[in-house]
Amino acid sequence: MIDVIVTGDVLKTIAKALVALVSEARFHFKDEGMHSRAVDPANVAMVIVDVPSESFEAYSAEEDVIGVDVNRIYDISKTIKSKELVEIKVEESTMTIKFGSVQYSVQLIDPSAIRKEPKVPNLELPAKIVMDAGEFKKVIQAADKISDHVVFRSDDTGFYIEAEGDVDKIEFHMSESELIEFNKASARSMFSVEYLKEFVKIAGSGDILTIYLGTNYPVRLIFDVCDGKAKVEYILAPRIEE
Amino acid sequence: MIDVIVTGDVLKTIAKALVALVSEARFHFKDEGMHSRAVDPANVAMVIVDVPSESFEAYSAEEDVIGVDVNRIYDISKTIKSKELVEIKVEESTMTIKFGSVQYSVQLIDPSAIRKEPKVPNLELPAKIVMDAGEFKKVIQAADKISDHVVFRSDDTGFYIEAEGDVDKIEFHMSESELIEFNKASARSMFSVEYLKEFVKIAGSGDILTIYLGTNYPVRLIFDVCDGKAKVEYILAPRIEE
Amino acid sequence: MIDVIVTGDVLKTIAKALVALVSEARFHFKDEGMHSRAVDPANVAMVIVDVPSESFEAYSAEEDVIGVDVNRIYDISKTIKSKELVEIKVEESTMTIKFGSVQYSVQLIDPSAIRKEPKVPNLELPAKIVMDAGEFKKVIQAADKISDHVVFRSDDTGFYIEAEGDVDKIEFHMSESELIEFNKASARSMFSVEYLKEFVKIAGSGDILTIYLGTNYPVRLIFDVCDGKAKVEYILAPRIEE
Repeated sequence: MIDVIVTGDVLKTIAKALVALVSEARFHFKDEGMHSRAVDPANVAMVIVDVPSESFEAYSAEEDVIGVDVNRIYDISKTIKSKELVEIKVEESTMTIKFGSVQYSVQLIDPSAIRKEPKVPNLELPAKIVMDAGEFKKVIQAADKISDHVVFRSDDTGFYIEAEGDVDKIEFHMSESELIEFNKASARSMFSVEYLKEFVKIAGSGDILTIYLGTNYPVRLIFDVCDGKAKVEYILAPRIEE
Repeated sequence: MIDVIVTGDVLKTIAKALVALVSEARFHFKDEGMHSRAVDPANVAMVIVDVPSESFEAYSAEEDVIGVDVNRIYDISKTIKSKELVEIKVEESTMTIKFGSVQYSVQLIDPSAIRKEPKVPNLELPAKIVMDAGEFKKVIQAADKISDHVVFRSDDTGFYIEAEGDVDKIEFHMSESELIEFNKASARSMFSVEYLKEFVKIAGSGDILTIYLGTNYPVRLIFDVCDGKAKVEYILAPRIEE
Repeated sequence: MIDVIVTGDVLKTIAKALVALVSEARFHFKDEGMHSRAVDPANVAMVIVDVPSESFEAYSAEEDVIGVDVNRIYDISKTIKSKELVEIKVEESTMTIKFGSVQYSVQLIDPSAIRKEPKVPNLELPAKIVMDAGEFKKVIQAADKISDHVVFRSDDTGFYIEAEGDVDKIEFHMSESELIEFNKASARSMFSVEYLKEFVKIAGSGDILTIYLGTNYPVRLIFDVCDGKAKVEYILAPRIEE
């Protein structure tokens, strides 16, 4: 039996984060909070969502794993306001989502029918960059108009995002002093904009993004969202540069 | 000769209310105000619009019936602001709509060429529910994503709106204390969402909606809109439950 | 070598003004400022853009002519905020556009490959009308829903814009006292709405529009935009009335 209350923004963010990669996911409820992770069908990206129990307005949950139709939750979450309180209850094979005078009942999916969660890979990534997530979002959206891939690179002069089209080029650069945190390590990898532009949908101006970057290696993008109430991490495989 | 002045919101609401069901309508101008009613081509719903003469900023109208291309009035009304003053004049077969420095002239339609108005049926409907129209609108729009029909039902525990999809369900419930007025009578009928979602377009938060409900019987939905300046009533036939 | 700084609104307006008629244009940088003009492929309209050097936050430019892909500049300008400072540099065959932490590099076009600028015709136009550009924009957008052409006319009773559809008509009228300036001269010409609706995209409420009108003659529409920092003039050939 699960019975929790959370603000609308958290439910909206969880749904948006997962729907970027999968249509079904397992939600783990534990004493320390709610956790979900999944890889996309092409095995290119992983999403890891964590909402600690303290981020809920009320949290009463036996340890349990449930299977969720993420698209349905996403559709429902769009009708909820960010500050609205939402009660989520799980009883047997039904999840009820209640806010205001409205209650949705959604059939759960047998978790064993959902693709098993991947192990989180142990990555050694030399460069650490901390920046405003809204700024990152703007650059990815601009790059998307020019090219289907971007290069992330860092060295002691700062962090760079570069995209090149047929006749034009966009370069984003922040030096150490403009970044929130930066260890000046050198790294360089290329990524698909297709994925990145889905990831940034959860990000707003004021949210903190921590990037761990290596050379021709996956990148970790850790978004601190909903005023720190939820953490969404994306791990994205690099594209091979020709 | 008709020469009246009205605020933009009233003209916008009249046009929106009628365009939900018909493309042409007769407008009756009488001493007590303006009246129009029409049924949709499928004979499933009726709309009744009343704007008393006191709701006009100026009202000078000989008793008359005119035939109006509702789509044109709707298009024009979209370019008018809610608080703008609009002068509507009818001379011979032309209606002029004037606001700011702009004046539209629209050709009238011979009223005898428009389908005759229906008689308003005399319905005995046991349940009376009064609630915020904006709240009702939200539920109908949410139900529309799940199913093509909804059940309205009431008993001494309150008023319910329910929609059921293939894998999920939405239930709206307000008890007597949450409703503005409620006589606790029992009733239950099913309706097409297709119609309801058109009806609620005129409703805003703060507007008052009065519902008269029976069992497997038409429903009356009376919207008090534009700060009480206009009354729009819809009568909708029930769908037969299997 | 060109190196100038300008606010986002000016760059956005220049791009929007030109993209209404052409996809490539020559930009002239002179001591007194930046100038560009072009005719559309059908030779029906001309656009003349002038931004005096005082309207730039910084202006350092050798006299030069460059060839610009207007569509690219327009796309980029959409990602810039109106009050943001933008640095535009031209070195050899590359234009860089820098704002915030983002820098675009755009390949220039050989100016000799772009259609030569037209001479500005010397027109004797009797009527002069000065009015709010936002008001003009609203009328053109309304006329566009009714007809593909409009008549501009003036006489001692004021300035008129008229459009006539199959069953309806729109008339805009401002008397001398409602206009900012008006010399009461008589004139009348008909124009294509297709062009006008592109022109008005640069206009906002509060901007000043000066119209010079003749009879069956081209019209000059001079928009003072960006708080007077830029001047965009359109010259539009009349349509022959049947």
